[in-house]
Amino acid sequence: MVAVFCFNQMKFERPTYLLNADICKTNIRTMAEKASRSGVIFRPHFKTHQSLIIGRWFREAGVTRITVSSLSAARYFANDGWNDITVAFPVNLRETQLVNELASRIRIGLLVEHPEVALKLEKDLLFPADIYIKIDTGYHRTGLGIDEMPVILRLAEIVRSSRMMSLKGLLTHAGNTYAAASKEEVKKVYVSCTGILNEVKKNLGDSGKELLLSYGDTPSCSIVEDFNNIDEIRPGNFIFYDLMQMIAGSCGFSQIAGIVICPVVAVHPSRNQAVLYGGAIHLSKDFLVVDGRRIYGQLVETDQNGWINLIPGAYLVSLSQEHGILEGPDEVISELHPGMTAGIIPVHSCLTANLLRGYQMTDGESGDYFPGK
Amino acid sequence: MVAVFCFNQMKFERPTYLLNADICKTNIRTMAEKASRSGVIFRPHFKTHQSLIIGRWFREAGVTRITVSSLSAARYFANDGWNDITVAFPVNLRETQLVNELASRIRIGLLVEHPEVALKLEKDLLFPADIYIKIDTGYHRTGLGIDEMPVILRLAEIVRSSRMMSLKGLLTHAGNTYAAASKEEVKKVYVSCTGILNEVKKNLGDSGKELLLSYGDTPSCSIVEDFNNIDEIRPGNFIFYDLMQMIAGSCGFSQIAGIVICPVVAVHPSRNQAVLYGGAIHLSKDFLVVDGRRIYGQLVETDQNGWINLIPGAYLVSLSQEHGILEGPDEVISELHPGMTAGIIPVHSCLTANLLRGYQMTDGESGDYFPGK
Repeated sequence: MVAVFCFNQMKFERPTYLLNADICKTNIRTMAEKASRSGVIFRPHFKTHQSLIIGRWFREAGVTRITVSSLSAARYFANDGWNDITVAFPVNLRETQLVNELASRIRIGLLVEHPEVALKLEKDLLFPADIYIKIDTGYHRTGLGIDEMPVILRLAEIVRSSRMMSLKGLLTHAGNTYAAASKEEVKKVYVSCTGILNEVKKNLGDSGKELLLSYGDTPSCSIVEDFNNIDEIRPGNFIFYDLMQMIAGSCGFSQIAGIVICPVVAVHPSRNQAVLYGGAIHLSKDFLVVDGRRIYGQLVETDQNGWINLIPGAYLVSLSQEHGILEGPDEVISELHPGMTAGIIPVHSCLTANLLRGYQMTDGESGDYFPGK
Repeated sequence: MVAVFCFNQMKFERPTYLLNADICKTNIRTMAEKASRSGVIFRPHFKTHQSLIIGRWFREAGVTRITVSSLSAARYFANDGWNDITVAFPVNLRETQLVNELASRIRIGLLVEHPEVALKLEKDLLFPADIYIKIDTGYHRTGLGIDEMPVILRLAEIVRSSRMMSLKGLLTHAGNTYAAASKEEVKKVYVSCTGILNEVKKNLGDSGKELLLSYGDTPSCSIVEDFNNIDEIRPGNFIFYDLMQMIAGSCGFSQIAGIVICPVVAVHPSRNQAVLYGGAIHLSKDFLVVDGRRIYGQLVETDQNGWINLIPGAYLVSLSQEHGILEGPDEVISELHPGMTAGIIPVHSCLTANLLRGYQMTDGESGDYFPGK
């Protein structure tokens, strides 16, 4: 029943993130077309793939503006010709030298949520930068809430009177869609969060009129069809998707663009388990709860062309540093032998990609990953 | 109350694993002396630090035999002059070329728990290798249980009649000590696991007589004083220790050899939180449950010399890719400002070290980390 994955030209000696470039490109096209239909700017987040090669697939699809999650990643992509980058993370004042280096040569967007930070930037910035005020629309991770309008107004004032900073927009990440139980709930979160964003803009009066409203997160951008009340979307995870997104309804199995190939190193039929070379340092300890237990990935059936089916009930149930414990029905585990490989859909592709730091494509090509510095 | 960490010569622009070399060396000496008092071989596990520089500190303390968790890490250390290495992970048959490369130039120890694997190795090995049979003494991750004596006997027979394989010992990792609730419980696990190991040896009769019994895990090796019924210990985490080990009673605060320095990028006094540049890709999503909630690290008080106190109630309560949410008492959060740094004891140092891939020492030196391939 379980087909062994056997692209013969690939050795798969160690845990490997195997990507199907066609699926990635379809995911890009689908999202780009949706943004275009809604008339919003498509500024994809590159934090998931962090790859120059994959970045170029976005460029081929007409993307010219991107989002990243760190200043050092901004430099990585700027060095590959990207010249309009938003760093969707509160400005790190310990890296103002890098901020200036970037601002000197590309259009850089920075997130600010603290007057102190704006005042410090005003002192230190040597080149122009776009500023977005980070708004907390319900996720409560970062940003200023609508109950903090006096701070938002003060921030807007500091930025507007600055030499180098231009107030460009209000930006939010609706990470609370990840906790949504259904597509309907995701849509509700979208309505609520974009509503708050619009209200903050209105509260800013004349000074808010020209501000762009920028909205993130893959669940919303995958499930909502019409982005009628915002100006920009910044989804990231959709390039690969993963088990978390699939279970949440953001994507179907056919949109899963990558799996992790793990060598089988031991089998224990008596406990319905196999041991994979594929642990916490390959897949990450992020988990989902399925039927009351933590799972770290799901086994897929594979053939010469790729991953063709989920295997029901076959999950990674435990990870240590290098070991992954795969548990599944008798008829699945009995097919596995040391020396084979197993294909796993990771729970959270962003963290898995960051751990594996490189890709193998199904056509044999390999892909880079941001080296981290 | 919270002192900002301020080694002035260090910039700490990004999340950084800061190590105190003196504490590391004391941890090495303490464990080496304990092994020596018990008359057991000290074969430390290098999977936590994965650093050539730190490896040399072990060499200076008289260590000549080491453990690693992957064949590629074995090559990394072999290239630095280590010539007696046990790879404490079931042999990966997809890397037999690397096994042979290593076996051609160093004394290599391999773990086998499956007759199929032993038969395949017998065919493929071109150079001698030490073989350890992996015994499951209660952790149920890998290895053969005492209820599988026929398989163990069969394995022993295959290895004993081999050209290149020498049956060297029985090896176990008592990972179940990590779930122990107290020091007493750790001691009980030790007694139970080493008891099983000795029983398997006895069951092997004459062919078991000269087998070495090898035992791992930091909690046991830290808490048990006398290793009277085994021949070798393989602790790894004790080089740094971490919050998990401290809470489990394996170490005290003074033995914590490293903290993660994270820039503060935002503060939200209204919700008793600060946002740190230090997320899942820096600290890992491994967590502890403290007072009913998940925590990913604890804040420490620091001065010019290092970390001097735990700060009660100040925990990382949530991590996303780059963000860490630090929550703590009013008087702590009110001291934090964007641009400062915060020192965090990580929950699980092995995974954190793997993510940060390099060290800064408190004396200004920097340290390498295994590049992963």
